[in-house]
Amino acid sequence: VKIAIAGGTGDIGEGLTLRFARDTDHRLVVGSREAEKAQSAASEYQSRLETRGVEADISGAENTAAVTDADVVVLAVPPYHIGDTVVSIRDHLSGDQVVVSPAVGMRGDDDGLHYHPPGEGSVTELVVDRVPGKIPVVGAFHNLAAGRLSDLDAELGFDTLLVGDDADAKATVASLVEEVDDLRPLDAGPHANAAEVESVTPLLVNVARYSEGMHDLGVSFH
Amino acid sequence: VKIAIAGGTGDIGEGLTLRFARDTDHRLVVGSREAEKAQSAASEYQSRLETRGVEADISGAENTAAVTDADVVVLAVPPYHIGDTVVSIRDHLSGDQVVVSPAVGMRGDDDGLHYHPPGEGSVTELVVDRVPGKIPVVGAFHNLAAGRLSDLDAELGFDTLLVGDDADAKATVASLVEEVDDLRPLDAGPHANAAEVESVTPLLVNVARYSEGMHDLGVSFH
Repeated sequence: VKIAIAGGTGDIGEGLTLRFARDTDHRLVVGSREAEKAQSAASEYQSRLETRGVEADISGAENTAAVTDADVVVLAVPPYHIGDTVVSIRDHLSGDQVVVSPAVGMRGDDDGLHYHPPGEGSVTELVVDRVPGKIPVVGAFHNLAAGRLSDLDAELGFDTLLVGDDADAKATVASLVEEVDDLRPLDAGPHANAAEVESVTPLLVNVARYSEGMHDLGVSFH
Repeated sequence: VKIAIAGGTGDIGEGLTLRFARDTDHRLVVGSREAEKAQSAASEYQSRLETRGVEADISGAENTAAVTDADVVVLAVPPYHIGDTVVSIRDHLSGDQVVVSPAVGMRGDDDGLHYHPPGEGSVTELVVDRVPGKIPVVGAFHNLAAGRLSDLDAELGFDTLLVGDDADAKATVASLVEEVDDLRPLDAGPHANAAEVESVTPLLVNVARYSEGMHDLGVSFH
């Protein structure tokens, strides 16, 4: 499986790339708006894994090149770039790919972070609206602490919630998640249920801010 | 401590009453709009605990009588009754009490349950708006599976998130939560952060519906 991480130089992209590269045999392509930035991140990730004795297959490319021929395309970009990113890559996507949306719209005030979805109802649904019709979209990886994800010494024990209307695409993403150590996929239903999934992210930040000794939080369901 | 559970005949009220009665030495008063219904629920709970060898102090009363002189008043009523309930008891509340709000506004459609807050932003903030000014309100117990809570053989292992603007009131509720087995209080900040806490409840129902083998879910943060 070839996994493209568009925005793979950002913090959540870094964590996902490192975990997938360490725990699976899949090919990782870090995407960025600048090819050079992507390549330098890719080789930095690769050498971090090499120091741990992991031989990983990570390359870097400009976003459109990164997503071409990828089986799974993760849109690991900030929510305010997600619309532009989808527009820039949409001609390079095809119907046998799966697009994964991990972004969350939030706004902050003195009290904490608050869920701030786009007009479509959720970022996942915004992505669904923008990608060509036949390409399935799965919302996933919303509620992972980027710092914990990137720290390969840290144990996760997190659940990640999947939303999507295409059962095959959701099964593809679920099986990728299952390959990552200490990460469990759970099904939260169709795209229409994405808002409740995405709104856990600001909650995690608020709990970490106000609960002593808690930081870089994830969540598990039981 | 005297804990009044207004709406204590409902499913979340039942679970909270049983757990507090089993795990703490506090006095429980089940409240209902009808005194008789409250008394019959109270004696039913008490006999269920007696069969387990637990001698509990549970009485029942009409809501206004139940909350009078209680140290902590839990509004375990459905969200569409919360406004009326607060209006009906507000003259019986005083500034040295703590009001606890566990209700969540939701709406359902074919896809699942969705968070549906009142105009105030959250049910917790609606309660804050309606109780007399000096009485502190703490949002808590939102994301507990009523079925698990009422089944005294079931282990919880859940976290419950507290929101509130009054540190002393929050500490009072946190210390009560800590007395309940397998339940951990976490601080999610002021009332303004209640919406993100409340919106976990529909998510739990959606995950239980779509994830095989999962039911009566709670959540933990780590």
